[in-house]
Formats: sequence, C-alpha cells, structure tokens
Amino acid sequence: MSTEQTFDVIVIGAGSTGENVADIVVRGGLTAALVESELVGGECSYWACMPSKALLRGTEVLEEARAVSGAAAAVTGEQDVRATLDRRNSFTSNWDDSGQAQWVDGAGITLVRGEGRLDGEKRVVVRASDGTETVLLATHAVAVCTGSAAAVPPLEGIDSVDVWTAREATSAQEAPGRLVILGGGVVGVEMATAWSALGSQVTLLQRGDRLLAGQEPEAGDLVAESLRGRGVDVRLGTSVSAVRQDGADVVVVTGAGEVRGDRFLVAAGRRARTEGIGVETVGLTAGEYLDVDDSLRVRGVDWLYGIGDVNGRRLLTHMGKYQARQGGAAIVARAKGDQVSLADWSPFVATADTAATPQVTFSIPQVASVGITAAQAEERGLPHTVVRYELGSVAGSALFADGYTGTAVAVVDTGRDVLLGVTFVGPGVSEMLQAATIAVVGEVPISRLWHAVPAYPTMNEVWLRLLETLRDQ
Amino acid sequence: MSTEQTFDVIVIGAGSTGENVADIVVRGGLTAALVESELVGGECSYWACMPSKALLRGTEVLEEARAVSGAAAAVTGEQDVRATLDRRNSFTSNWDDSGQAQWVDGAGITLVRGEGRLDGEKRVVVRASDGTETVLLATHAVAVCTGSAAAVPPLEGIDSVDVWTAREATSAQEAPGRLVILGGGVVGVEMATAWSALGSQVTLLQRGDRLLAGQEPEAGDLVAESLRGRGVDVRLGTSVSAVRQDGADVVVVTGAGEVRGDRFLVAAGRRARTEGIGVETVGLTAGEYLDVDDSLRVRGVDWLYGIGDVNGRRLLTHMGKYQARQGGAAIVARAKGDQVSLADWSPFVATADTAATPQVTFSIPQVASVGITAAQAEERGLPHTVVRYELGSVAGSALFADGYTGTAVAVVDTGRDVLLGVTFVGPGVSEMLQAATIAVVGEVPISRLWHAVPAYPTMNEVWLRLLETLRDQ
Repeated sequence: MSTEQTFDVIVIGAGSTGENVADIVVRGGLTAALVESELVGGECSYWACMPSKALLRGTEVLEEARAVSGAAAAVTGEQDVRATLDRRNSFTSNWDDSGQAQWVDGAGITLVRGEGRLDGEKRVVVRASDGTETVLLATHAVAVCTGSAAAVPPLEGIDSVDVWTAREATSAQEAPGRLVILGGGVVGVEMATAWSALGSQVTLLQRGDRLLAGQEPEAGDLVAESLRGRGVDVRLGTSVSAVRQDGADVVVVTGAGEVRGDRFLVAAGRRARTEGIGVETVGLTAGEYLDVDDSLRVRGVDWLYGIGDVNGRRLLTHMGKYQARQGGAAIVARAKGDQVSLADWSPFVATADTAATPQVTFSIPQVASVGITAAQAEERGLPHTVVRYELGSVAGSALFADGYTGTAVAVVDTGRDVLLGVTFVGPGVSEMLQAATIAVVGEVPISRLWHAVPAYPTMNEVWLRLLETLRDQ
Repeated sequence: MSTEQTFDVIVIGAGSTGENVADIVVRGGLTAALVESELVGGECSYWACMPSKALLRGTEVLEEARAVSGAAAAVTGEQDVRATLDRRNSFTSNWDDSGQAQWVDGAGITLVRGEGRLDGEKRVVVRASDGTETVLLATHAVAVCTGSAAAVPPLEGIDSVDVWTAREATSAQEAPGRLVILGGGVVGVEMATAWSALGSQVTLLQRGDRLLAGQEPEAGDLVAESLRGRGVDVRLGTSVSAVRQDGADVVVVTGAGEVRGDRFLVAAGRRARTEGIGVETVGLTAGEYLDVDDSLRVRGVDWLYGIGDVNGRRLLTHMGKYQARQGGAAIVARAKGDQVSLADWSPFVATADTAATPQVTFSIPQVASVGITAAQAEERGLPHTVVRYELGSVAGSALFADGYTGTAVAVVDTGRDVLLGVTFVGPGVSEMLQAATIAVVGEVPISRLWHAVPAYPTMNEVWLRLLETLRDQ
C-alpha cells in the first residue's frame, strides 16, 4: 500500500545541489519535495569539501607560520591530531543532518526520506527504510541530483580487500599507519597532504607522469615536489595491476613492485549515481551521466532535469549549486510559461560550466584555476598566448612566506583580447582565484585590466606582472 | 660652475612612482634622467609599505594559527621580536639602495643623485651633497614625483619633543616601552597593531569617533574592538591640545587628561612635498599638491607632470605606480606627436584614481576596499543600494579560523547594475580585494557576476551571499 502526493517539482537527492534546486523553485512560488536516502547535505558536507579542508587547515596554517622568520620561533610544538580530527567532526556536525533538515523545513521544502526512483513520466516512488512506499507526482518537473560516487576500478582482487574511498578517507577517526593512495587527482593529493601531516606514512600511486592531470603542468610538478619534501612517497608512471589482503596489510601490486599499507584509498575518479533510480523507466541508461542541455534539462525528456555531478559536466560542489540556480530558474520560468533564453550567460543556463569553472585543490601549495589551460587552448585551436610569472618574485609573496615558491599562468585570447584561463599555484592562493573568475566571466578586455590596480604589497601584484609580461612578449 | 645635460624626460624623485615613470618613457624610446636626494626606491621600500607589512606579518600568521583548534597546540612559544625586526631590515635591504640603483642603471635610466629643483621651463637644477650643481634640460617633459611627507600638526610644544613619524615607526630597531600614537588612520592603526604585538604598550588617540575614517563604518569598529582586545588603549573622540617633554617621557595633553609615552608617533595625514623644488619658478605654489588632469599633466603647464602622491589624488604606492604607467604613456605619446585620449579608461588616463582605488589596511582584521563607500554614494546622489553580509557566516571563513569575525559590504549602482565599491573586513581578506577591483573597473553587470562562481569552500563564497542578499532585499 502506498500514499500519493503531488508537488510542482520533485528533487531526488538532497546534497547541496538538490537543496539549492528545491530552494530556488520554492522561492519561485512552486512546491517542492526533496528526496534523500542518506544525509541531507550530501557528499560535500560530510565526506568531501568540508571534512577534507578541515583536516588540512591546521597543517597549512602551521606551515605558513613556520615560513615567517620571527613567527617560526613561536611554533615549538606539534599539531594536536585529536583536536584536528575533532574540529573536522564538528564541521560535519558529527555526520548528523538534523541542522540541514531543519533548514529544508524552514525553506518551505517537503523532505521525503527514502530511496527515490523514477517510475515513468513525472512520477517518483520513494521507499523508506521501513519498506513503506510513497508515490510523488510532479506537476512540472523532476530534477535528478543524485550526484556521483567514487569509481573503483576493477583491479584483480579488489573485492577481497577493504577499500577506502573519499568517504572513509575524509571521515576516519585516526590516522592510518601506512596509507596507500591510488590516484593523483584532487582527492589523492589532498588526502596525501592531510594524512601525511597527521601521522601517516603515505604512498601516492599515479598512473600518469604528473599529478593533477588536466591542470597547468606547474601545478602537478610543484605539488609533487612539496609532497616528497614532506615525506610522501610519490610514484608517478605507476600502474596498479592487482591488490590482495595479507593479514592486516593490503598489498598493492604495481608494475614496479608491491606496496603494503594499513589502508588503501582508491581516488581514481567518479561515476554517475544513476543506477537504481529508475532512469530506465523514462528511456535512459542506468550508470551513465545524464545528457543535459545548458539549462540542465535532459535532452529528449522535457520535464526531467539532471543537475550537479549526475550530468558529468563539472563535478564540483560550487558548480552543482550554480547549476541548481540556473536550472532552478529555468524550471520556474517554464512552469510559469515564461520564455527561457538558452543564450550564453542568460539567467537560465550554466555557461560557466564550459567557459569559467573555478577549482581549488587544497594541497600545499594550493592550486587554483579557472577557465581553460594552455593545452586546452591549443587543442581547441584558439588564437592565444600564454603568460607565466613566478609568484615568489612578487613582494607580497615574499612577505607572506620566506622562500615563497609558486607560479601564475594566464592564457590570453589574442583574438578577443580577453583571458581564457588563469592558474595560480602557491601557498595561500585560493582567495586569489575569484579575481580571475570575474575577469574570465566578465570578458574584461586586457586593456581594461591594466586599470585594475592590485593593492601593494599583496600577492595579487602578480596581475600587474602578468600584464607587463604579456606586453613585453 | 655647473655642467648641463639634456634628456627627453627628467623625473624628480626616484620613489616607486618616479622609477616607473622613467622606466615607461625609456621603454617608449625616450631618454630619461631620474633625480633623487635620498634613497632610490622611496618611502614605500624603506619607510612605509614594505617595513610595516614585514613588522605585521609574523603577528598575523601566529594569530591565524592560534585560531585553528589543533594547530593552536603547536604555537606554544612567543614571536622572536629580534628575528621579526631583522626580517623587516632585510625587506628594506638595511636601508641600502644599491640594488635599486642597479635596477635603474639596468633599465637604461640615468640616475642623478642630489636635490632637484625646477628652474623655469623644462629646466631642473640638481645640487649634489658636495655642492656641485648639474643643470638638466628636458626636451619633452619634466615629471615631479617627489611624493608626500608626514604632516605634523602645529600642536603647542611640538617643536620641543622628539616626534616619530611613519619613518621612525617603521624603521625602529626596538619596540618602545610606551608608544603614544596620534591619528587612527592607516598608519596609526597598522603601527598600533605591529608594536603592541612586539612588546609596546600602545595608546591610540583619534580625534574622530571612529578609526579608519572614510572607510565603511564596520572597518573602524572591528579594528578598534580588535586593538582593544590586544591591549591597545584606543581613545576615540580625543583631541590633543599640546605636548611636552618631561625627562625621558613625552607628555601628550588631551581633552581628557595627559598620556605619557616613551615615543610619540604623529600619524595625522600627509602633506605634498612641493617645497624647495622650485615650483614657484613655473608659476605654482610651494607646499600645495600639484593640480593635474587625468593624464597627470599639470594644468596650465603643458610640459610638466605631477605623478604619485605629489598630486594629492591618491596617496598609495600602487596608485602612484599606476599613474606612472598612465602618465608615462601620455608623455611618450605626446613626444611622438600621437593623439592622447583623455576619455575614461584610455591608456593615458588614471581613471581608477576616482572610480576604483583599492586599499588594504594590514591591521588585524585586515580592511580591504575599492571604489566608493555607501556614504560617498549617498553624498554624490547616485542611485544605489548597499548590501552587507557577515563574512564569518561563510564556510570558508569558519574553516580559516575558529570564531572568524568579519564583514563584506557592497555598494551597487542600481541605475547601471554594476558595483560602485566593495569593502571586506576580516582576517586574510587582502587577497580577496582584486576580485572586487576587477568587477568595479570592468563594470561587470550584476547579472553577469552571478556566473562568476566562487570556489567552495573559500571565503570568496561571500560573493554569492552578497548577490543573494541583493536579490532578496
């Protein structure tokens, strides 16, 4: 037996993306049900951004203090690992979502707990943990915001060992003695940085010949050098063929011998969470990312939206929330019969997904980038030039830390005289990124950027140096 | 007896502004003489930005470390004051300008050491320390870049006491026991922060009822609260009527009693350095700021430029250098007979002086602002709305420091849908400013700024919160 309820919009998945979609449509005057089978707040709040940054912050700030002669003398003790883990626990509310559920309620959204699955047109069936089912009917739209999960490659023996994914790595209550990490992307690099500082002996295995593939090459190079300097065994060009359990050890078999660990973290990419949610009932294929247009509407199914990681466009919390705002606005407008412009940068499309996606890797040094890299500009055949400047040569950086090492890379569209992409690598660069994002999104001409004077002496003086370098080359 | 030399351009004053003017005109194919009577590099390098920030950085980063539970446990010692002073000494090259002189030489600029003074049209006389005089003749232009000096108000008894100005306060080789500061502007606030942390007992006297007058009110309020929390005796609404020496003590007489100190720092504004440089010989008044147009050319004297502090437009190193680039370009263009556009944002005008001047006060918390304040928008009768958001409510700030306190204020032009000004107050906000500067300078529409997604979880998420607050109010 099941009950039936009708809402204007049904959102499946109450991560930060789903919460924002529901919020936007309710603000637009529609009713919304928000379906969640785990914790309201999703990956970011409990098993990704928040806990990982909380694990890293203490290490980062102590390193900054040690890099300032005079201040360094005061840092005579060690980080309190238990206090750092407790601080992380506090940022995840000890994995209790009552605060978030309260917010949902206060926002006028109906939270429906249970496993949601599509069941044909505008119909969602939710099975609660006690087995009862609720049928939700959507007047206007269903938004799938189920996100992504860690992809575990089908290595020989993988099912026989206890695998950590980002979830376990960000929520662990003690530092493993030996941690072997597979994958040198954002998760691998952040967790190597965090746990090596909190007491683990870390081995980082990366198949490619560089960490943080897809970023400007300086990023991976500087991060690898830094990780090695802090005792992480970074092995590039290393592929893993098999794993096995040997007593308490996980044994990871690589092309260059075996590595033993107490924990084995697989950080080798993500996969769409589109299995078990009934996408087959509306003609789509389970396990694939949802194919959406720029308003985040699933192509060919005019009442269905795929917003956030689940569409595979950009797997980042802030881009999921951005898509939620844009897609949510599109849902509201269409429900009202308003025109929805699909032109670039309209209020209904996620143009920044392709033109200006910012990303920060909270490694030491940090890597902050937006837009496209030099290699991508080359691939796309865009008329461009690349400008590089050593961040350590700027007065503000030298003041920030003795021996500051970092770099800035700007990719300039020589046809349109605007920035296509910017990358900063160095300690403390994360807050420098928004300037680049606004320059890229705003398509501010280079000639105008000369008037955007960086305050002296901040690290942002690098903007002037980049412009001067561009002028002189 | 004197020698005579001819240059295309003569620059009087080799601070950062003069150096940049000379550099730009030489790059433009002209010859340049650069005249300096003190240290090449000027105030900023030796007695302002660089030493003050070097004095502050250690205190700042230790406070940041103490504000992160887990990291705080490691900060068990005290800042090494001698090492901090030595670090400051190193940033000022121990007040030795040979490195800068070398740069001038390498840039193809002729450095002429001595006191330069105008002596009629396109003529500058330089008197060296040994009394010899050199006459410099300019083919095209003379640029006065003599900057500003501390203004010492004519208090009763002021000539009888040993007064510190910013120069002495930034270059002192030990912390005074009791430091009395007159003036709660940038210099007063920064020096109060620095020396109180390095061991001085500081009293800060401010005539007005708020520190950092001219900034958004939150700035002065939060800084005053913080200074008091660190033991500084902040006295607002306090005017000083007289000073006297009493043995080793300086006694400062205020409307509310006397204050005694070992040192008395006057940080009560600046004055134009236009005395003793012969401006009278070209019809101008000594002691006044030079009145210039947007290309930094002195009104009524078509071969004379006043660039940097000396024109009184914006007394900031980075704005002086900006004016140097713009005015330098104007000099080069006019020398070549090219057209010089005086339109806003042209390569020859310093539009940002009025529309988008960034400024950072390196207090704790930092204050970073660009463009105009709400009060200024009101005064100018601009159609506007003001948006405020507590910076501590953003996830990135909470991660940055436990109990983070700060704020963001944006002034929006409701007619043109662009930002007029932005202020951030809080720990670590200095590198957030460039984003606001680019938004203001680029006149990026609010509708477009919605696409400039802040990376999560950084403090820059406040951009999204400001936009949401604007939308909802």
